[in-house]
Amino acid sequence: MINRLFFDISPQVSAYEALLSEQKSVGYYHLPEQNLEYLQEFKEAFEKENKEIKHLVIIGIGGSSLGLKAIYRTLKNVKKFSRRIHFLESTDPIAIKTELEKIELEKAHFFVVSKSGTTIETMAIYKYILNLLASQNITDEYRFTYVTDKGSSLEKHAKTKKSFCLHVSENVGGRFSVLSAVGLGPLCLIEADIKALLEGALEIKKSFFEAGYMRDILLKKATFYAKNSMKYNINALFVYSESFKYFSEWYVQLWGESLGKKQLHSSFNVGLTPVGLIGPKDQHSFLQLIVEGLRDKSVTFLKIEDFNYDVSIPDIKLEALEEMDNINNLSFNTLINLQADSVIDSLIQKGDIPVDTITLERIDEKNIGKFIYYYELLTSLVANLMGVEAYGQPGVEESKKILKEKLKDKRLL
Amino acid sequence: MINRLFFDISPQVSAYEALLSEQKSVGYYHLPEQNLEYLQEFKEAFEKENKEIKHLVIIGIGGSSLGLKAIYRTLKNVKKFSRRIHFLESTDPIAIKTELEKIELEKAHFFVVSKSGTTIETMAIYKYILNLLASQNITDEYRFTYVTDKGSSLEKHAKTKKSFCLHVSENVGGRFSVLSAVGLGPLCLIEADIKALLEGALEIKKSFFEAGYMRDILLKKATFYAKNSMKYNINALFVYSESFKYFSEWYVQLWGESLGKKQLHSSFNVGLTPVGLIGPKDQHSFLQLIVEGLRDKSVTFLKIEDFNYDVSIPDIKLEALEEMDNINNLSFNTLINLQADSVIDSLIQKGDIPVDTITLERIDEKNIGKFIYYYELLTSLVANLMGVEAYGQPGVEESKKILKEKLKDKRLL
Repeated sequence: MINRLFFDISPQVSAYEALLSEQKSVGYYHLPEQNLEYLQEFKEAFEKENKEIKHLVIIGIGGSSLGLKAIYRTLKNVKKFSRRIHFLESTDPIAIKTELEKIELEKAHFFVVSKSGTTIETMAIYKYILNLLASQNITDEYRFTYVTDKGSSLEKHAKTKKSFCLHVSENVGGRFSVLSAVGLGPLCLIEADIKALLEGALEIKKSFFEAGYMRDILLKKATFYAKNSMKYNINALFVYSESFKYFSEWYVQLWGESLGKKQLHSSFNVGLTPVGLIGPKDQHSFLQLIVEGLRDKSVTFLKIEDFNYDVSIPDIKLEALEEMDNINNLSFNTLINLQADSVIDSLIQKGDIPVDTITLERIDEKNIGKFIYYYELLTSLVANLMGVEAYGQPGVEESKKILKEKLKDKRLL
Repeated sequence: MINRLFFDISPQVSAYEALLSEQKSVGYYHLPEQNLEYLQEFKEAFEKENKEIKHLVIIGIGGSSLGLKAIYRTLKNVKKFSRRIHFLESTDPIAIKTELEKIELEKAHFFVVSKSGTTIETMAIYKYILNLLASQNITDEYRFTYVTDKGSSLEKHAKTKKSFCLHVSENVGGRFSVLSAVGLGPLCLIEADIKALLEGALEIKKSFFEAGYMRDILLKKATFYAKNSMKYNINALFVYSESFKYFSEWYVQLWGESLGKKQLHSSFNVGLTPVGLIGPKDQHSFLQLIVEGLRDKSVTFLKIEDFNYDVSIPDIKLEALEEMDNINNLSFNTLINLQADSVIDSLIQKGDIPVDTITLERIDEKNIGKFIYYYELLTSLVANLMGVEAYGQPGVEESKKILKEKLKDKRLL
């Protein structure tokens, strides 16, 4: 992984110190070094009970699904897995129906993922699935794995059933939980290389905390973003790989939910808005706005060096379209990266658009681990420099309260 | 379709007059009243030649695919179609492979969609497909429909082959072209109700131009957005329906590419940044940033009144999770709309977040037509009030030029 910044600033070292001291209370920092034995045990117990399982169905929303979905959907384009992972994460009745049509219930195992155990979407779908299984006389014994906080009401519920239960590691918030059991539990059952995932994360962690290459880069980037948060209030991540597109959603949650906060010392509303873009498609969409629009955006490009699958544009001359001969014999791998480079060059030339580029060697678990940990550290740094608490989400409570009241009113009608 | 604004402003009527006079030179205004005979003829000719076609494959990018993709992927969740539509729109080699794996080539018909005919992604994939067909001895006679501007080099090329050709209506830009042959061509071959689509659009058009309900609403909303474009530089569209999610991408292109421009009278960079959100999922992601973040966003909510498919949360009491009994017996259709209402209420209460809500009766062609035309008119109005030319995209030319140079260099190596 190489990250090049096309802007300069003197880095604010205090943010590094803040992260050092945060390590005592914030759990995600320690995930790269976790002992994986509990997953080995889980996998063995699972395989003993569930030999015929072809579908792993995640009932979870937000931090309980976005990270795993990003990893799985990225990898499944480059690796064959013997089981499929599905996601039930909406209360849209049509979405539930559409997703269930792809699943053979008898060959399905369900993960109910909720830190608290009282997430309304997750519980509504869980009840729906319980009923569906009963209506088809499918036993629910060992049909469910619950992933939740130690001591939650969902854990208590799990103990009343023959089932599996995994804990979210302590002090790990939902959007920082992908490298905990939330992500690793399902991934170990499809034989994804979770060790390599953690190795990639650890490499970035070491490079940052042990004064490697990443320390300076991450501090500079975070300092620039925080210092210019009122000018460049939008941060676009422009990914030149369709496989990575679900990492846009993961990034949007991580960035938006961590940084959109009342400032601790002032109570002022501050925040940075994440935008996920896919190249080259969004060259025909959002790019115009970056090039000629208001100078309120920074842009990070993500490139894949080697797609490890390549095909070329054949040497075909087309009547009346001779001007398109210049792409003949070019590999698509080369073309997409030339397209990225052309857009990068054109933005740098403008001089007033902050650009940086991240290059991953290839699409595999190790590189994905690096990418995840890089963004988690960057988020923590920017939060510190913007004076916000990165790990809560107090703003979403109000609408939950209003919903409870509406549900009560509904009952009284 | 009902649109309610939770902010007030006195509307700038000059924008309405600007649209009235634009009608002479801007083609999309006239699409709702187009004569559909050419599509009837196309369909008859197509069915005569192509009886066994099961897959319609669109080779196109940006305005050549986003609108059709949004309509198709929304409708296919609520209607059964006898043919599937696929999209080849990226130069990512893995994406090309993954998409082609879903298609039986012998039963596929390809649409090559490019106004100019020299879109690099489209031509690269077109050549690749030509070669693939030849390698499998599949005839390319009547295998392709070209959708392009009258007189383009792609039209000239089409004439050298036994094929079909449809024209993009005159003076219709890519991102405003979904109701032209670009969208209607493929849609008529899957028996989508394209008449209803245009009827929906026409209803909004009449309501706006003939001083109906939409005139005042659209003018007020556009005036507010343009007047506050430096304060609220981000416009989120929060859609409470998974089916509608591809309309987010369509909206992002329409809004971003039309409004992100150099101002005509000043050459200043101006623009509004579109963000597409899906509820309730993004309550667990982006919502925190809206509630507690910087006050730089307006939010439009889209709700579906009747999903026309409904299932309920069963009356199940779960041990240790008794507090979740309050959702028992509730239909998912009701729940998702209560969730939307709760978030809407919580944002309105803040007092400093501009909110409006759009409600569609159901998911069908007519409602989709309304939604599309509503956003096209709104975009034209805001562009006029912001002093930008809505219909070009001059900013993206630079990176295309750089790419051509890089390709030349590549040849010389």
